[in-house]
Amino acid sequence: MFSFKITHTSKKSGARTGILKTPHGTIRTPAFIPVATLGVVKGAVDTADLLKANVQCQITNTFHFFDLNAVDVVKRAGGLHKFFHFEKPIFTDSGGFQVFSLGKGGAHGFGKLHSFIPGNKAEIKPHKASLVNITKDGAIFKSPRDGRTLMLTPEKSARIQKKLGADFIYMLDICGTVIDSKREVARDLTQTEEWFKRFLKVPIPPSQRVFSIIQGGLYTDLRVQSTKAVNELPTFGIAIGGAIGKTKNEMYKILGTIEKHIDPSRPHHLLGIGDMESIPNFLVHGVDLFDCAMPTRIARHGVALTSKGRIDVHKIRFKNIFRPIEKKCLCSTCDIYTLSELHFLAKAKETLIGRLLTIHNLSFLESYLTTIREKIELNKF
Amino acid sequence: MFSFKITHTSKKSGARTGILKTPHGTIRTPAFIPVATLGVVKGAVDTADLLKANVQCQITNTFHFFDLNAVDVVKRAGGLHKFFHFEKPIFTDSGGFQVFSLGKGGAHGFGKLHSFIPGNKAEIKPHKASLVNITKDGAIFKSPRDGRTLMLTPEKSARIQKKLGADFIYMLDICGTVIDSKREVARDLTQTEEWFKRFLKVPIPPSQRVFSIIQGGLYTDLRVQSTKAVNELPTFGIAIGGAIGKTKNEMYKILGTIEKHIDPSRPHHLLGIGDMESIPNFLVHGVDLFDCAMPTRIARHGVALTSKGRIDVHKIRFKNIFRPIEKKCLCSTCDIYTLSELHFLAKAKETLIGRLLTIHNLSFLESYLTTIREKIELNKF
Repeated sequence: MFSFKITHTSKKSGARTGILKTPHGTIRTPAFIPVATLGVVKGAVDTADLLKANVQCQITNTFHFFDLNAVDVVKRAGGLHKFFHFEKPIFTDSGGFQVFSLGKGGAHGFGKLHSFIPGNKAEIKPHKASLVNITKDGAIFKSPRDGRTLMLTPEKSARIQKKLGADFIYMLDICGTVIDSKREVARDLTQTEEWFKRFLKVPIPPSQRVFSIIQGGLYTDLRVQSTKAVNELPTFGIAIGGAIGKTKNEMYKILGTIEKHIDPSRPHHLLGIGDMESIPNFLVHGVDLFDCAMPTRIARHGVALTSKGRIDVHKIRFKNIFRPIEKKCLCSTCDIYTLSELHFLAKAKETLIGRLLTIHNLSFLESYLTTIREKIELNKF
Repeated sequence: MFSFKITHTSKKSGARTGILKTPHGTIRTPAFIPVATLGVVKGAVDTADLLKANVQCQITNTFHFFDLNAVDVVKRAGGLHKFFHFEKPIFTDSGGFQVFSLGKGGAHGFGKLHSFIPGNKAEIKPHKASLVNITKDGAIFKSPRDGRTLMLTPEKSARIQKKLGADFIYMLDICGTVIDSKREVARDLTQTEEWFKRFLKVPIPPSQRVFSIIQGGLYTDLRVQSTKAVNELPTFGIAIGGAIGKTKNEMYKILGTIEKHIDPSRPHHLLGIGDMESIPNFLVHGVDLFDCAMPTRIARHGVALTSKGRIDVHKIRFKNIFRPIEKKCLCSTCDIYTLSELHFLAKAKETLIGRLLTIHNLSFLESYLTTIREKIELNKF
């Protein structure tokens, strides 16, 4: 039911194309995974909109289903695919990123991306105090929604993800920040490796596959140690998580180090990063999958991706531009809507603008990656 | 290009069916006109969604285009139909309702509907002081958006509506409240009649038709006086505006009085009222058209119309209900979504819930009116 085959590795850059088969269809890699935090991509888009945007798959956040007491109802409905009418491959994270964002990442007022995306201040809102206490057993949270105490353990993360029924599930890890000391990162890595063993003791049905996660923060030797450790685990895929750089160059350097040691036969998922500018730079290090909330979040704020960079449709210069965002774009937004109308809808604060730009940004990214895959196959990337 | 033909009058109730032809297609009456305040129905729905809901037409608010400086850009794009890709009949109001809601209606903290829809407190938000000064020339507004001073005159309302290019445009009137004294209402009526004469001096293209508006508040003799006056005006249709009752029964009584005097050959539009419970009661008084923001507004707050009344999908009792809102409903929401999923989306505060329930509520109202039209034709209504 599941397979991953590398179809080509570019002689020019080392970037690779592949075919990832699942019970819910095939993903052509490198692939962008749109973020469907609560089962649906934000912005009032539905599955029909996603299919029109040629979306291949989506990733949903385990933590929120746990927090909303909605795990069992999803299971009763037949799992995420049935509940949300999305019959393409679905990924669920472990809840680990929320450990990070409610915990010290949030307490310090910055997220994973802040260190290298200039001006990106909104990634994670700062909390007055950490809402998370990490013990040997697991992570004890205060619900950000209603303040009740919750505990997520490796076993619980596995059991919840079994119930949600995604194609790909992720091991619970401790996700560090860019300011963690080497001693802290090493300690968290040891704890994470313990949690991985416990996670793997929970039997997973044949309709699901597991991704392990490389941690180790900004410390090259710890990243190498973590990479070698996850290579030994019997997981289908390998993800790269946590803080991987204070600057983009530091990120690329760490990805280059991981690339030298990671099992090349498995799919590699770079967690939570996918700004347009960085994509080529991490594909050359063998990344096959990446997810990021940015393309859909900026859409809801009136920002569209274009071949010449981002544009904010609120800008007055679009008021009388009666052409689409991108002339060559085949998405349903560019098919119908002019920049003039998008500008009007943004100024009028109509929520339709978020939906239209979400469809465009997702479609634009899919087209961009289709072009990249073609270039890789021709050794031109 | 335009015609209105009454096809049947029920022998049982006096309610009537008709065919209203326009350059943008035919409306079967009695018809509900969905409110597209800023050119689009709120809730991130697009034209495809409206067509799937079998919407026949829509009404857009002139004032907001004036306030947003967007009249000329709509004209340059070819008018509202082209700009918003809605090739069905469009109505634009005059801006008169905003005179009311920014003016004394707003200053007193209640709207037209408050007097007779129990619990409906949200219709119009109270302002600290009136933002409107009505003179002989027209209405001087403070923009609620940026505070600049604007003036709307009968001539300006006509010219703006010409530029917007709706099929049906409305004369600028002064819209009263339920607490106005008879003297105030009589004074406003005299002013409104002056404005109507000035409005009609602006030449209107053959692609547009005008609706006059009956005012006169809660005073039967003034309503009769206004009805007789508008009968004499050479307009295509006649609307009924302003406060028409402190209670529902008072509203029906005033509608009954108007019915006795209004020109029966023209389409009659009851402005801004369309709660499910009242619909049959005003149809029996010869109302052909009615618009109301309620069905779409409650949708955005998680409330669905059903054959057994309204339901709020936030309610915990829907958590495990794996059937659609209405088993017999043919809308795209009921086709796919269970109450369980709608409950989840509402609790998760996903904006998709507003879109899905907007589609359902509009579709539900259309089906309801189709049934009513059939009953009228069979003399069973």
